[in-house]
Amino acid sequence: MSTAWTSRYAQRTKGIKSSAIRELLKLTQKPEIISFAGGLPAPDVFPKERFAEACKKVLEQNSDQALQYGASEGYEPLREMIARHIARYGIKAKAENVLITSGSQQALDLIGKLMINAGDRVLVEAPTYLGALQAFNVYGAEYVSVLSDDDGLRTDLLEKPLRSGPKFMYVLPNFQNPGGTTLSEGRRHELVLLADHYGIPIVEDDPYGQLRYEGEHLTPLVVLDRENLRRDNGYSIGNVIYLSTFSKTLAPGLRLGWVVAPAEVISKFVQLKQGADLHTSTFTQMVAYEVAKDGFLDEHVKLIRKVYRERRDVMLAALKEFFPAEAKWTYPQGGLFLWVTLPEGMSCQKLFEAALKENVAFVPGDSFYARNGFDGEGQRHMRLNFSYGQPEQIREGIRRLAAAIKSQMQQVHLVGV
Amino acid sequence: MSTAWTSRYAQRTKGIKSSAIRELLKLTQKPEIISFAGGLPAPDVFPKERFAEACKKVLEQNSDQALQYGASEGYEPLREMIARHIARYGIKAKAENVLITSGSQQALDLIGKLMINAGDRVLVEAPTYLGALQAFNVYGAEYVSVLSDDDGLRTDLLEKPLRSGPKFMYVLPNFQNPGGTTLSEGRRHELVLLADHYGIPIVEDDPYGQLRYEGEHLTPLVVLDRENLRRDNGYSIGNVIYLSTFSKTLAPGLRLGWVVAPAEVISKFVQLKQGADLHTSTFTQMVAYEVAKDGFLDEHVKLIRKVYRERRDVMLAALKEFFPAEAKWTYPQGGLFLWVTLPEGMSCQKLFEAALKENVAFVPGDSFYARNGFDGEGQRHMRLNFSYGQPEQIREGIRRLAAAIKSQMQQVHLVGV
Repeated sequence: MSTAWTSRYAQRTKGIKSSAIRELLKLTQKPEIISFAGGLPAPDVFPKERFAEACKKVLEQNSDQALQYGASEGYEPLREMIARHIARYGIKAKAENVLITSGSQQALDLIGKLMINAGDRVLVEAPTYLGALQAFNVYGAEYVSVLSDDDGLRTDLLEKPLRSGPKFMYVLPNFQNPGGTTLSEGRRHELVLLADHYGIPIVEDDPYGQLRYEGEHLTPLVVLDRENLRRDNGYSIGNVIYLSTFSKTLAPGLRLGWVVAPAEVISKFVQLKQGADLHTSTFTQMVAYEVAKDGFLDEHVKLIRKVYRERRDVMLAALKEFFPAEAKWTYPQGGLFLWVTLPEGMSCQKLFEAALKENVAFVPGDSFYARNGFDGEGQRHMRLNFSYGQPEQIREGIRRLAAAIKSQMQQVHLVGV
Repeated sequence: MSTAWTSRYAQRTKGIKSSAIRELLKLTQKPEIISFAGGLPAPDVFPKERFAEACKKVLEQNSDQALQYGASEGYEPLREMIARHIARYGIKAKAENVLITSGSQQALDLIGKLMINAGDRVLVEAPTYLGALQAFNVYGAEYVSVLSDDDGLRTDLLEKPLRSGPKFMYVLPNFQNPGGTTLSEGRRHELVLLADHYGIPIVEDDPYGQLRYEGEHLTPLVVLDRENLRRDNGYSIGNVIYLSTFSKTLAPGLRLGWVVAPAEVISKFVQLKQGADLHTSTFTQMVAYEVAKDGFLDEHVKLIRKVYRERRDVMLAALKEFFPAEAKWTYPQGGLFLWVTLPEGMSCQKLFEAALKENVAFVPGDSFYARNGFDGEGQRHMRLNFSYGQPEQIREGIRRLAAAIKSQMQQVHLVGV
């Protein structure tokens, strides 16, 4: 039924639909379902006692500040802590380069608001994080998609898309969502060289960077940024904006992310953030600061790595044991996800329905491709999360999923033909 | 210095400047300054112990849920509580009609995103809440401003602006920010009749409704809404969207507000909220629920009313005692603010600077008028907050402010001429 409201929506809302994942997740709430669909951290590793102590301390010592309005930029000690923390990766930032956001998702929304005129193209990986597509779509973004492989975004395919004049490029170099792949060191250098050559700014989204289970940490794009290197003045100039979050290291329920950017870009974000939600909860920022400080976060991340590494290994072993020989999957060196490729002719949407009957869920790959991108391509893929389930559930879930796959492969005559 | 970022901002950011209040507030942080500038609740009434108990309980009993990702709509028990709570004002809503937002400010941003095409006109009161102007400006809103007086928006001036085809109207009927005025019962009826006649939807912003210090609660516009009355089916149809918040009754540092709207409008907001920040902090929502429940919020609001009523009365008495006879001010029956009108020829911006020298601060009136609105008009006004200061500070602050005013009046020959 139409009201004065529903008949008057702005043009930008046309075609904005609830994400496929969201609708799917509703189907996967039943307790008998083993879900690889969400991107949920494991609640077993939430540091609850530390949180309880932090809440107590903040409310005993600083309740007047914690419960009051705060600065749009964020809680100063937390911004300083983040600046110190990312120095270990070579990122030269001060508090003035850090904006606290209500989760990384808000950073993506603010980037869309700051940068995208309707019709502007954004260069994205194919596949890419669907939350970024959701955030950018509402500002009328169009996309240029560039394929990725096991070494991340294919920089050998970048030149033509960059010549087409995208407003910026959006990349997840570490343990990409959904691919689970990591951009190789060589490609990182190529990427920033090309971006510099064509003058295209980069959004480097790094929610999982700390969750590396093997191998060496690779240099962030923001550190390789030619503009930064040329002037060697830390973060006062620079063509890379860097995003991260506490969602994967402390707890997503806090909704705490951050943007690192040149100070003049931060000050523009601050103005937009004021209009968007005034500021992020003072209380959760102060609690997060209390939880993270004195080296706790570093120790805690070690625990998360241990738990998730084991789950990844269980999933990889189960895939090898149960999945048909025709299936391939990525080998994530960190993060929360891996990406399965099935033979051509498969339909991940149909497979999703079949899998639900086996009480197992995943996210069909087509959710991760930009509009007008690779419509057919997504049907062969699925994203699997390995952080949330217990190891024995992961193994059983993969067994069930394999059964559903084999059954569909037989139906479409991909087996034994 | 320009970077690839700063040279590529979207058109909508042109002219988006940091709010005047924000810049002013930076000047008023010094401890020797008595500030009537902010809209801050009094920290003395934050229920800290109750918060501490609630945090403890939530983390002991529900940490897995509280620290995890949650639904974009918000925490279900909190939505149900809000629906029950507003029933006392005659608002028929179910949980499905309630969306939890990251403060009321986010509700305003989502409304702008949902409704405003660049160039669309929004009908606002003159003066109006500057945060709404900030939220709508970024979507390219133009404004039709309608003057208000001691009984709120002047409905006798509404017909022509409504004929000009605004996309919606934005009104604060109770203890308006900045005016401190309340829309009279008669005008409420006229307003919804006119809105219905011209088919113009209404955003009813009600952050202060519960903070009434005298007189009877007046019927919300959403209850008078002709569309609702005509169909008598609760909130499934309706041309009024109702906003409120916990910022003035529990604590603004939580960033918890809400929208009440027809379910189909809520579902559109939910899609936009997903892209904007996924969801509001699960933890703060669960803590707010624990704090508010079992009748605590109602009892607590009584305390707030008592404290703020006293401060209002102290300010009114001091104004009468110290301010020049040429000045007028509104008489707020509730809320946090009153609005002072000085003789023509005064400059509130200059007065602001003079007042700072006397160590007292306020917000100059021009911040509260829409672009292209009443540019000169704002210079005669100032908004004074009476919720934050201690009574003795309020009296002393008004004494200092009166001195600054009298001094400026002499300079512009408004006294003794």
